[in-house]
Amino acid sequence: MELLKNRIKKDGKTRGDSIVKVDSFLNHQLDPNLLNEIGKEFYERFKDEGISKVVTIEASGIAIASLTALHFNVPAVFAKKVESKNLDAETYEADVYSFTKGRDYKIRISKKYIGKDDKILIVDDFMAMGKASLGLMDIVSQAGAELKGIGIVIEKGFQEGGQVIRKKGVKVESLAIIDSIDENNIIFRGEN
Amino acid sequence: MELLKNRIKKDGKTRGDSIVKVDSFLNHQLDPNLLNEIGKEFYERFKDEGISKVVTIEASGIAIASLTALHFNVPAVFAKKVESKNLDAETYEADVYSFTKGRDYKIRISKKYIGKDDKILIVDDFMAMGKASLGLMDIVSQAGAELKGIGIVIEKGFQEGGQVIRKKGVKVESLAIIDSIDENNIIFRGEN
Repeated sequence: MELLKNRIKKDGKTRGDSIVKVDSFLNHQLDPNLLNEIGKEFYERFKDEGISKVVTIEASGIAIASLTALHFNVPAVFAKKVESKNLDAETYEADVYSFTKGRDYKIRISKKYIGKDDKILIVDDFMAMGKASLGLMDIVSQAGAELKGIGIVIEKGFQEGGQVIRKKGVKVESLAIIDSIDENNIIFRGEN
Repeated sequence: MELLKNRIKKDGKTRGDSIVKVDSFLNHQLDPNLLNEIGKEFYERFKDEGISKVVTIEASGIAIASLTALHFNVPAVFAKKVESKNLDAETYEADVYSFTKGRDYKIRISKKYIGKDDKILIVDDFMAMGKASLGLMDIVSQAGAELKGIGIVIEKGFQEGGQVIRKKGVKVESLAIIDSIDENNIIFRGEN
């Protein structure tokens, strides 16, 4: 998606060889027109999959899921991050390892909002090691719902998440795949 | 906003005389078409205020802010909730008292995304005692930005937040004001 790649080149801030910050338009300040175009693009890529729900994790996935769900004309559901160790009988839950925090956290979705008749599109802002998507896939599986695909805004192609999940036969569509970050220069897959 | 009140009557779940859960369409599962109508309604009510940014708090405010910002054609910014006690020189921060948690938490917005030339519309899903809005107002004030108004989806008219904030001269527009909850019956302001 050229619009997105150009925006990342223009406004993304790199740190070292593996971090790109997109706080100015994707996950702290939000550009609603770009989010709307992202939603439209996910719709184009998954419109033949019979999607009944768009699923994500709070907080930075929520804006993306909302605008994507608007184009599909279906509900969005966001998993909540919880500290609690108590099992809640009314929710599906999964553990997600956070590299930032160096430990697992739990994500939960109410059993009321995902079920065996659902055809699910998972969306998220970033994919690196794929831990968040794997956690959501676990919940989709517990619910007996059908995973139809995963839409990622920015995939770090130099980390293994995308490969691991595609090997499971899941359709993963990333709107920008970064192959490397080299002295403030972001190289996208397909360039050079 | 009749569409919203009808939806709250139909799908809201009451608990006792002060809680209404709207998990099925506003803050866990999200109805993107309703959110879009909410955004349009906030635009109608604040379109003459020269709004340059829509500000909210994660997580449940994000979907509302995104769709509202789309109608205003301006960026949205969401304050992050942080556990950290360390002061961060690059952010504005405020303390917000949580009745659910029984303690304060901190909210933060990067100084990059709110400044003295901004005309701010704050939006949120609920207003009860008004603590979240007061925290955001504190940040807007620290930034030297101008607060043009607050848009609330559901105001609990039987709690004091709306009154406290309107007394400060702030334009508060709530799309549904609940005056009382009586044996599963929700009474909106203007009814009976």
